[in-house]
Amino acid sequence: MSTFKIAAISGSLRKKSFNTASLHAARELAPAGVEIEVCEIGDLPLYNEDLRVDGSYPAPVMRLLTQLQGADAFLIACPEYNYGLTGALKNALDWCSRPPIKPFVYKAVGIFGVAGGAQGTARAQAQLRGVLLGLDAYAVNQPQVMIGAGHTKFDADGKFIDQQGRDFMKQHLEALVKLARQLKS
Amino acid sequence: MSTFKIAAISGSLRKKSFNTASLHAARELAPAGVEIEVCEIGDLPLYNEDLRVDGSYPAPVMRLLTQLQGADAFLIACPEYNYGLTGALKNALDWCSRPPIKPFVYKAVGIFGVAGGAQGTARAQAQLRGVLLGLDAYAVNQPQVMIGAGHTKFDADGKFIDQQGRDFMKQHLEALVKLARQLKS
Amino acid sequence: MSTFKIAAISGSLRKKSFNTASLHAARELAPAGVEIEVCEIGDLPLYNEDLRVDGSYPAPVMRLLTQLQGADAFLIACPEYNYGLTGALKNALDWCSRPPIKPFVYKAVGIFGVAGGAQGTARAQAQLRGVLLGLDAYAVNQPQVMIGAGHTKFDADGKFIDQQGRDFMKQHLEALVKLARQLKS
Amino acid sequence: MSTFKIAAISGSLRKKSFNTASLHAARELAPAGVEIEVCEIGDLPLYNEDLRVDGSYPAPVMRLLTQLQGADAFLIACPEYNYGLTGALKNALDWCSRPPIKPFVYKAVGIFGVAGGAQGTARAQAQLRGVLLGLDAYAVNQPQVMIGAGHTKFDADGKFIDQQGRDFMKQHLEALVKLARQLKS
Repeated sequence: MSTFKIAAISGSLRKKSFNTASLHAARELAPAGVEIEVCEIGDLPLYNEDLRVDGSYPAPVMRLLTQLQGADAFLIACPEYNYGLTGALKNALDWCSRPPIKPFVYKAVGIFGVAGGAQGTARAQAQLRGVLLGLDAYAVNQPQVMIGAGHTKFDADGKFIDQQGRDFMKQHLEALVKLARQLKS
Repeated sequence: MSTFKIAAISGSLRKKSFNTASLHAARELAPAGVEIEVCEIGDLPLYNEDLRVDGSYPAPVMRLLTQLQGADAFLIACPEYNYGLTGALKNALDWCSRPPIKPFVYKAVGIFGVAGGAQGTARAQAQLRGVLLGLDAYAVNQPQVMIGAGHTKFDADGKFIDQQGRDFMKQHLEALVKLARQLKS
Repeated sequence: MSTFKIAAISGSLRKKSFNTASLHAARELAPAGVEIEVCEIGDLPLYNEDLRVDGSYPAPVMRLLTQLQGADAFLIACPEYNYGLTGALKNALDWCSRPPIKPFVYKAVGIFGVAGGAQGTARAQAQLRGVLLGLDAYAVNQPQVMIGAGHTKFDADGKFIDQQGRDFMKQHLEALVKLARQLKS
Repeated sequence: MSTFKIAAISGSLRKKSFNTASLHAARELAPAGVEIEVCEIGDLPLYNEDLRVDGSYPAPVMRLLTQLQGADAFLIACPEYNYGLTGALKNALDWCSRPPIKPFVYKAVGIFGVAGGAQGTARAQAQLRGVLLGLDAYAVNQPQVMIGAGHTKFDADGKFIDQQGRDFMKQHLEALVKLARQLKS
């Protein structure tokens, strides 16, 4: 049986980001046969149509699109800045919405979010779902993974140690694989 | 009587952007005594806490913050990409939300939006209002300026030629100055 | 081959509602073998947990839940009042979210929206998608059906006469049936 | 000095609602000279233009509008049902948006929200702000009052006993009175 590939993106660029760390937790929690590759978005230029000379993509964008194109499903770690997506994440997703390469169309997307406050990225995730609609991707509904008080839930090595959160992540990944397969059927 | 200064930002980076052009229209339509300065955001790095060495800001961010700090009010031209803010605009606003320099706190903000489709940036503007809440800024309510079918409403020189739209812009700018003064009272 | 049943709800209560009329158009435009039943929501009480004596539902709510339970998929005509859902529609959906009867779980939902203004219910539909997430239902992504300037697109008998809009509705209904079948697979 | 009148609405209809209880806490926490009257919305009919015979309002709606018209500012207790406003609250606000009586125009509105979960009505409050924009009202920005785990923060008599939450409420009410006065200036 072939490997099921998930391409993952973290909306936070800092090295010790809890959101990025949650993607590493996802590797441990994913169903058997699932491989998760984390894609870099920190070196993309700010989206600007003038950069698309003759419809081409800038090199870092082309690299990202190529990685995403090979995936069976996607996983996005979605921080919340000022009640919305990070500029870095929105910028990456906007680059993924311009023809001819549109890797998200009719694909399934899982969403994790870690925040310092209690709301656990509720509002940013709601926005992300709206953007994914624009990309014609289907985001997993339940269980939603909103981790509040993030600084209490990762250890010094960045390992995610909250058992309830781990359970939600595991169920979310199972739901992601299920939905991805249904959308291909 | 002293000049009333509006610092303006366009969420689109391309040279012939209709949204950027709408800010030039604003200059013609603003009440007497109002000066509008358009601030550059295209050279800001993607937000990353790791770039804030000892709490400093990267140079282009510091330049933007300094421009914004001197303003009496703000005007944002808000394109809609995938039903949300552009990454460039969100990135700029996120840089404006980190202490110690927070130029938007308890200030008034006007919003223009131009789109190709009929919806006229309705959803992006809704998101922008949410972000401005995070910055503790007050966005003007009415009249909202949502320009659909943008390509039919600017001439070859980028001049905004839709009379109804111009009327809304003029009223919006008057409402902005009024609200800004009330918030200082 | 058995009939595919769609249970439909209109968020507008007035008799000559364009949104309700759009559901009648859906009957003409649905794929062969698809039956659409419009469900009444105008007689539901305002949601109040105190009305759920011993976990029961008020009679009109029980009638609605029974109708919805038999459906293979759903179709909602979503007007926009003050940039959001109508109270009547939200009220009906809230009644559908309380255990033990939850008819929307892991089901597909189509969305039509007709508005007087140009925005064509863009913001109300975005909210509706958020509510459907709460109900664990999957809303069809594309093509979105947002009919602006509604008064120009229905004739005196309430027939929907806009050909482009009819095409979108037809494609949306096909996408709904496809998604509903995939979610069952 | 004359009394400053706040008209308050609770979006929950059940008798022991924590949101309704938060409005009673507001009475204790309001600045001196401020009077808070809670208005009933549970007996309003579902909004339906057909009920507006010759532009009149149904009797319970007329009663509500009359109460609201006399107020200097507003306070809304905003529960979250399925990530959005309650149908009852949205219904009441829609009745307040139809000419000739529009009590919210250019008035200030405070928002409290109590929820069982951790998110503390973050998404419902975001929606409420969008609706208030439609009504041309200005909602207080900061501090936001989002009370999570509501069942742990009220005693058996419905008294709000969370000191941090009480501090936020007090500051929010002060900000409401300040904003209301600025909008009149």
